[in-house]
Formats: sequence, C-alpha cells, structure tokens
Amino acid sequence: MKHNFGAGPCILPQAVFKQASEAVLDFNGLSILEVSHRHKDFVAVMDEAIDLTKKVLGVPDGYSVLFLQGGATLGFTITALNMMREHKRAAYINTGTWSSGAIREAGKVGIEVLEIASSQDRNFSYIPKGIVCPDDVDYLHFTSNNTIAGTQFHDFPKAKHLVCDMSSDIFSKEINVADFDLIYAGAQKNLGPAGATLYIVKDEVLGKSTSQFMPTYMDLKKQADKGSMLNTPPVFSVYTAMLNLKDLQAHGGVKEKQKQNDAKAALLYQEIDSNPLFEGTVAKEDRSKMNVTFKLTDESLKEEFDKNWKSADIVGLPGHRSVGGYRASLYNALEIDSVRVLVEVMKEFARVKA
Amino acid sequence: MKHNFGAGPCILPQAVFKQASEAVLDFNGLSILEVSHRHKDFVAVMDEAIDLTKKVLGVPDGYSVLFLQGGATLGFTITALNMMREHKRAAYINTGTWSSGAIREAGKVGIEVLEIASSQDRNFSYIPKGIVCPDDVDYLHFTSNNTIAGTQFHDFPKAKHLVCDMSSDIFSKEINVADFDLIYAGAQKNLGPAGATLYIVKDEVLGKSTSQFMPTYMDLKKQADKGSMLNTPPVFSVYTAMLNLKDLQAHGGVKEKQKQNDAKAALLYQEIDSNPLFEGTVAKEDRSKMNVTFKLTDESLKEEFDKNWKSADIVGLPGHRSVGGYRASLYNALEIDSVRVLVEVMKEFARVKA
Repeated sequence: MKHNFGAGPCILPQAVFKQASEAVLDFNGLSILEVSHRHKDFVAVMDEAIDLTKKVLGVPDGYSVLFLQGGATLGFTITALNMMREHKRAAYINTGTWSSGAIREAGKVGIEVLEIASSQDRNFSYIPKGIVCPDDVDYLHFTSNNTIAGTQFHDFPKAKHLVCDMSSDIFSKEINVADFDLIYAGAQKNLGPAGATLYIVKDEVLGKSTSQFMPTYMDLKKQADKGSMLNTPPVFSVYTAMLNLKDLQAHGGVKEKQKQNDAKAALLYQEIDSNPLFEGTVAKEDRSKMNVTFKLTDESLKEEFDKNWKSADIVGLPGHRSVGGYRASLYNALEIDSVRVLVEVMKEFARVKA
Repeated sequence: MKHNFGAGPCILPQAVFKQASEAVLDFNGLSILEVSHRHKDFVAVMDEAIDLTKKVLGVPDGYSVLFLQGGATLGFTITALNMMREHKRAAYINTGTWSSGAIREAGKVGIEVLEIASSQDRNFSYIPKGIVCPDDVDYLHFTSNNTIAGTQFHDFPKAKHLVCDMSSDIFSKEINVADFDLIYAGAQKNLGPAGATLYIVKDEVLGKSTSQFMPTYMDLKKQADKGSMLNTPPVFSVYTAMLNLKDLQAHGGVKEKQKQNDAKAALLYQEIDSNPLFEGTVAKEDRSKMNVTFKLTDESLKEEFDKNWKSADIVGLPGHRSVGGYRASLYNALEIDSVRVLVEVMKEFARVKA
C-alpha cells in the first residue's frame, strides 16, 4: 500500500478502484467499455452521475450539470465563448499557471481581459485580497486552488457573473453553487479518472453568447439540451466518477470530507511550521488544503530526505517541475494515516539531524 | 458470453478487457487511474501507444500521432481550423450524418464549404463516384465509413490535401497513410475505450493555419510539440488503446484483421442476399464491412425475429435510431463465430417461416 501524495490524476477510494475494475470485466453482462452510450444502462449511469453531483454539492434548481471532455484547458476556451456578452470584456484574477492559461485562451477568442488582481509579483505565493469586480465586464473568472503554488481562495470573490475553474478543490468542501454562473473542473482530482470535465452552469446564461465563433461541441446550451450526449461521452470516466460520488455520499458527503481535509492539512502544516528543517512556501492565510507546498531549509539535505520518504512507501511528493521543493496533495481519498506517515518521516529526519 | 454487434463504444478482445481491469487495481503498484500523466511509467505508455499506432498502420516518417479528447465532433472543428489556408474554402463529400456534421462545423469556423459530392438524394445509401477535387480549395474532407447508413469507401478519393474522419474503420484494414494530410478517429470502434481521439497528421501541415481563431487545445502543432501532453490526457483510454494495439500487432496486424473482417462481412451479406426474409439497405458495391445494415422484407415479423436473436445472446443489433432496421457491427474484436450465430438465427427464422 503506497501513500500517494501525487497532484493528479489522483487517488480515489480503493472501493471505487475495485468496482471500476470489476465493471471493465462485467457490467450487466458486458464490459463497461463495450456498452453503447445510448443503451439504457449507460444512460442511467450518466443520469446518476449528474444527480449525485447535484445532491453532493447542493446544486440548486436552474443549473445544468454536464460531463464533457478536454480538461480545464479546453474549458478556458469553452467558458470564455459561452460567457461572452455585450462588453466582450472580462475580469480575471491571476493566481498562477492555470489562471494565466485561462487569460491567454480568453484573449484568443476575442475577449478583452482585465487582469484586475494578480499575485505574480511574488511568484503566485499568495491570493490577492480586496478584489472588486468592475461593472462593465461580462464576467469575473478565478481559479479556486492553485495546484502548483499551493494557494487557495478560502473566501471567494463576489461578482454578478462569477466563473470559476474549480478543478483541484471541487468536492473537497461545501460551496454555494448559487453564487456562480459557471463552475468547471477537470475530473482528475476529487471526482474521477482523467478524461471527463465537469461543468455546472446556470441555465439562464445558456444560449446568450455574443461570440461569432461557437463550435457545436463547445456550446454549453447544445450540450445541456443533449444531456452531455451530443456525441459519445467518456464512458468509463463518467462511470467511475459516478461510483466515486456514490462513495462520497455514503461517507458523509462534502461536509464530512471538509472536516477530514481540514484535519489532514492542519496536521501537515503544523509539522512544517514546527520542524526546523522545513518551511512553507506560500502566505499562511492562503495555504491550500489540497496541495501543501514546502521546502527544506537546507537544500543540501534533499538527497537524504528523498531517500527517507521513498523508503516509507510515499510517492508523488516532488513539487511541480516549474517550482521544485515538495508538494503533498491531500485529496479526498488520501487517508489521514498517510499524512501521519509523512509527518513521522519529517519528525524522524529532524531528530536524526538535530 | 454475449455476441455484441453494437456500433460502439465497442468490443475489444477479452484479453484486453482483462489486462485493463487488472491495471485499474495494479499498475506498477498503483491504480492506472491514480498515476500522474507526467510519471515515467505513463509517459512510456503514451510513447508506446504512439509507436504501436505508427507500426500497425505503417505511418511513414514525417507524421505525428496524437491522442486528444472530444471525439470526432470536436475533430470536425479541429481539422477545419488546422487545415485552413489561403482559400478558406474546402471540398467536402457528404455521405451522411458524420460528414454533414463535419460540413456544419467547418462552416462555423469560417470555411466556405464546397459540397462536391453527396449521396443525400438516396438517403445516403451509396458512396458517390468519380469525385474530382477542385484546385482552389484548402483540402478535401471525407468520412471513410458511415456507421449509420452502413456504407464505406472501398477506394479513397484523391486530393492534394486529403483529410479523413476514419473513426469507424481505422485499424480494420491496410491503408496508405502517405495519401493523407490528416486522419482523425474517435477511439471507440477498433482502437480503445471512448474518451480518446486519434490524430495522424503530416508534420508539414502543422502551424500553417490561416485561422484567426485557434485555441491552444485545438492547435495540432502545439499538441504535437507537447507529445499529446499539453494537458492531462485521457490516461485510461490511452492505456487501454495501447493494450489493444499490442494485441492487434501480436495477432497479425491489420493485414490479418482485414482478412477476418472480409470473411465476416462476406458471410453475413451472403445470408442477407440469399435469405428471402431479409434485404440489404445500401448499394452492394458500397456496403460497409464494419456496419452491415439490413431489414426484414416483411416488417410485421419484427417482434418475432427480435425475440429470436435476443434469445441467442445477441445484443446491439437494432439499427441506428434515425434509420431503423438492423445493423450488425463487425468490428475487429467480434469473432466470426458470433457472425455464425447470427446467420444461424436468420436461417432458422427462414426455415420456420417457409
């Protein structure tokens, strides 16, 4: 049993892996991989995945839930195209790689981007505060959690038309969907296997784009009208996401997960702050509960520390290739016992080096 | 053991299902679903899937192989965007639902579409012949196999810049990739699970688009530069496609599959033509070897015939909802024994009704 702190595609509960594995061999007499997406058995899977998403996140009436493809990267374009209105101008908060990507893609489809706040001045190590969204924009876009830097919005900005890339912290805590026009998220953190992308969109924003360019696949209204089945959906990813949502619901939902995630993050940050060999890399008040970034105070100890955590069956701990250091991702399915193992390795390392 | 004649997402060899199922539980100590796409173990999977595609199809030097998302529907847009040149005009052959979709999406991105041939006059029941591509177009687009009507190009049209949606017959027979600028195909017929889309693109066409609109995800040059890893790829679909390609290569490759597919199609068409209770629905010379469409000569026998094939453990035989009748899809992984079972049901039905 390995302790997988990888940033994703990511761990899911072992029970979900087991059920998904079984369905590859037998799903009502066929492999889940060979079932037509138009067959009633799969239509029921898609319906259940949508229904569970609504229940687990408390999605209010008047919102549609879609499972599409292309990840958040295609989502950068899809959101800009679908949210474009008379201003053809949007406010973006730049908190790192992913928001920078969203800004770039919005520009490519003809949105004038107002970068109303940015933490680029300190290498994205904090979340900008006191954000006020101007009136003359079509929407405000932000990224709720920066997987790479390890920062997270703990209070969401306010705007009349709020759009959020929630890829790396959706389903990790309670949110108020009614505050948003559009939420999108690559599945491969707390939802399911890579290959599916979730969209939660307020119905009243559908079909109101002013974009001249709107491929059918990227038109959320057309996708919603077809119940995410405009073309063949990513069958196995949706099926496994459904299993995971069912498991999540059976274990107390996001309310319970939020408690566990808070406890896991507190345990690890406490060690980082009290252990002289380590230090956090971002502003304390903006620390992510999903991706805990830290580094050695003495980089020359790297080889030795790496050997230690590897021999404790820990995997996925190196930081993103663009920032270095360490990153412990604490997604829903990571047990607190795995965090305890890591903390023990850090404590022991300090004892040996003292 | 069911005989799955469904049109897709589709059957793969049982050995592939078994290996894919196992990898969901254990792929080098983790589930394949929780492995980072940047980990060397998955990078090796992607490399092998690309390499096997090249070997199996005899892809010459100077072509890139990509695994993206969005299916052929997003591919309609991606191909038009990437193939757009100075004319901003392209020739399309309309052989049914999928080519019509490709035509619609090309128009949406500003391509002037010349429909140089169409079989719409007889409900797409044949393949237009004697096609000559005009000089003043950027490319010629066609759909090699119409999954719905059951027609197939047995001789490909010629053009300086040839683009083909080969979703439903790629890997079923030998092709000469060098004739094409761009081939694309949803994986979920002969390649792998739904959620991956294959692109085989001549390198010299990359980066030459004249489109003003080019989202990064849809830019084949950028995708090729990043080896299909511009963002998180559909990990499990690519992994299973790799397993399937390996299995295909180990069993004689497309040359051997072509023989088997020819034999399966011949067996079923022979029964359709000799059994007085059935008739084919498309021009004989254009019949698809992947999707065999037929109907009862007396529609009042439907209920009884349906009961018979269902009791023989046959599934997926109803025709597409837009055309009715029957459709027996004979993809690579369907054994000839399954065709024999269907033929026997048809023969027995004729004996009883005689």
